[in-house]
Amino acid sequence: MARIRSNDEGMWLGERFIPMPRTISAEAQAFLANPMFHSPSASPALDDAAGWKAYAAGIDAAMIAAMKANVHRTPGTLREHRLAHGTLFEAIPDALRPGGEGRAVLNIHGGAFVCGGGEAAALAGLQLAGRTGLKCYSLDYRMPPDHPFPAAVEDSCEALRFVLARHDPAHVALYGGSAGANLVTVAVWMSRDAGLPLPAACVLHSPGSDLSGSGDSQHANADLDVVLGGGDGAALRLYAGGHDLADPRLSPIHADYTPGFPPTILTTGTRDLLLSDTVRLHRKLRGAGVSAELHVWEAMCHGLAHDAPEAREVLGEQVAFIHRHLGLD
Amino acid sequence: MARIRSNDEGMWLGERFIPMPRTISAEAQAFLANPMFHSPSASPALDDAAGWKAYAAGIDAAMIAAMKANVHRTPGTLREHRLAHGTLFEAIPDALRPGGEGRAVLNIHGGAFVCGGGEAAALAGLQLAGRTGLKCYSLDYRMPPDHPFPAAVEDSCEALRFVLARHDPAHVALYGGSAGANLVTVAVWMSRDAGLPLPAACVLHSPGSDLSGSGDSQHANADLDVVLGGGDGAALRLYAGGHDLADPRLSPIHADYTPGFPPTILTTGTRDLLLSDTVRLHRKLRGAGVSAELHVWEAMCHGLAHDAPEAREVLGEQVAFIHRHLGLD
Repeated sequence: MARIRSNDEGMWLGERFIPMPRTISAEAQAFLANPMFHSPSASPALDDAAGWKAYAAGIDAAMIAAMKANVHRTPGTLREHRLAHGTLFEAIPDALRPGGEGRAVLNIHGGAFVCGGGEAAALAGLQLAGRTGLKCYSLDYRMPPDHPFPAAVEDSCEALRFVLARHDPAHVALYGGSAGANLVTVAVWMSRDAGLPLPAACVLHSPGSDLSGSGDSQHANADLDVVLGGGDGAALRLYAGGHDLADPRLSPIHADYTPGFPPTILTTGTRDLLLSDTVRLHRKLRGAGVSAELHVWEAMCHGLAHDAPEAREVLGEQVAFIHRHLGLD
Repeated sequence: MARIRSNDEGMWLGERFIPMPRTISAEAQAFLANPMFHSPSASPALDDAAGWKAYAAGIDAAMIAAMKANVHRTPGTLREHRLAHGTLFEAIPDALRPGGEGRAVLNIHGGAFVCGGGEAAALAGLQLAGRTGLKCYSLDYRMPPDHPFPAAVEDSCEALRFVLARHDPAHVALYGGSAGANLVTVAVWMSRDAGLPLPAACVLHSPGSDLSGSGDSQHANADLDVVLGGGDGAALRLYAGGHDLADPRLSPIHADYTPGFPPTILTTGTRDLLLSDTVRLHRKLRGAGVSAELHVWEAMCHGLAHDAPEAREVLGEQVAFIHRHLGLD
């Protein structure tokens, strides 16, 4: 949208001026003025496979460069497990948290179902292992354009089975952001319905719970969210591959949580395009009697304001939640 | 703002069209299209005392009429206690909850510090007594234009002292919405600093925690919130009477919660003009180690969508929180 102009003083949304919030850290203000990551303004056409691969590669390159610059902060070793289709990285932190033996976190990466895999998924595993002080499995699942839904769901369920077979379910937490939080939620309720035990905890960061984009914040926060912008949903349609977006395997807002779901922490920001997806899933879980807690950060957009104090605070709440539910506090 | 046009299909904010969210109940959609309460478009001048009294009387009349239509649902008896300046209503529900003997809720009403007193405060007490099944004290505190800050704070502190002298603090919860949640928060931290014991629980519904209006949602949700509209803050300036808005007795976002604060539930909506005030106070409490939980409802504006299922759900969470913390679950 050519009508959006932003700078250190704020942003114009058409004729509406939204001043830069002074209620957030200087780093988060700088991020709003000049976001490190943001979606390219135009998505490829749905049938342009090469275009989607180039689109994802561009985002991945920026993500991987940023993660590599920080990987020295979370030293650890990496193993690889071949699943039927995907790859499961196993990251073991150099500094295992006391009492952390046998505990594990399964990370399912985000990236609108089209990016964040491969090396980025491996680095995400190392990062989360370092920050939790726990062994972290990180899944590189199949993605479109080559592998639309339900490939990612199948790989996520397989990864969860793998981890639950190697660890006491009471010692397993899941972590996902955005599309990854969607897959975490889907994998847990589908595995539950398949008779597997529930893991101990879920972290859902800015979850995409309704791929139809019907949440109010999809409109109210359009372009205010400098990470997702207007959110045209093309990547989600590519992922869905023509399946009904109301399918609870695509939009877990429509799944049934009354048969049980692990204690869950949900995190988002007031400017997140997926604010509605997050608070609606929180209400749905609460309505089903699930122990679910919600945290919302002032003026935060989708995902994290990288390296801002707010991002550390988000991670601090998430990691404390994991430790508490794995019996480590 | 003449540029705002809304109907059953949605609303135009200047050139931005925000469709009616279909993710909320039909009743809540009807409320968005035609809100029962909304702030008059123009506030009186700050020195127009008669104008402010007429302004408050108009809002109060609508509020009292709506409450009277529902008062039969929550039968109870009402007593009055004269405080040094204010009046404390004591509402005893006909149907006291089993085990509820000796328990009490102190309600401090909202209304931008200028309305909601008198009969509305008494009715609010009866309503909350009926809905909690507990004795409910409801404070009619002094308000501007005759009595600006700190009159309401003094009355709130006196009411809390009164209730804590008659009940075991472990059996006392506080309830406040909007300006009332501001006063609850201030009364609790000031009473704590004065050496009084902490009550057992606080309910803060859409709290006004920063009267300077610096929260991001003051701009991002301006006019999207059909209850508060653009929020010109005139009533808050009238209340402050020239005092520094950064004073923690006016803006409790600036108070210190590390010496202790009761377990607290905070409730708001994604369209609330005070969404930022609410989530910032939640973060502040969490940062101080307070047990504080946040609930955010999809597309809800400031206060409640009266009689919508969402409003019952909000109250259900709040009442369950009170019962749990008064040892009644």
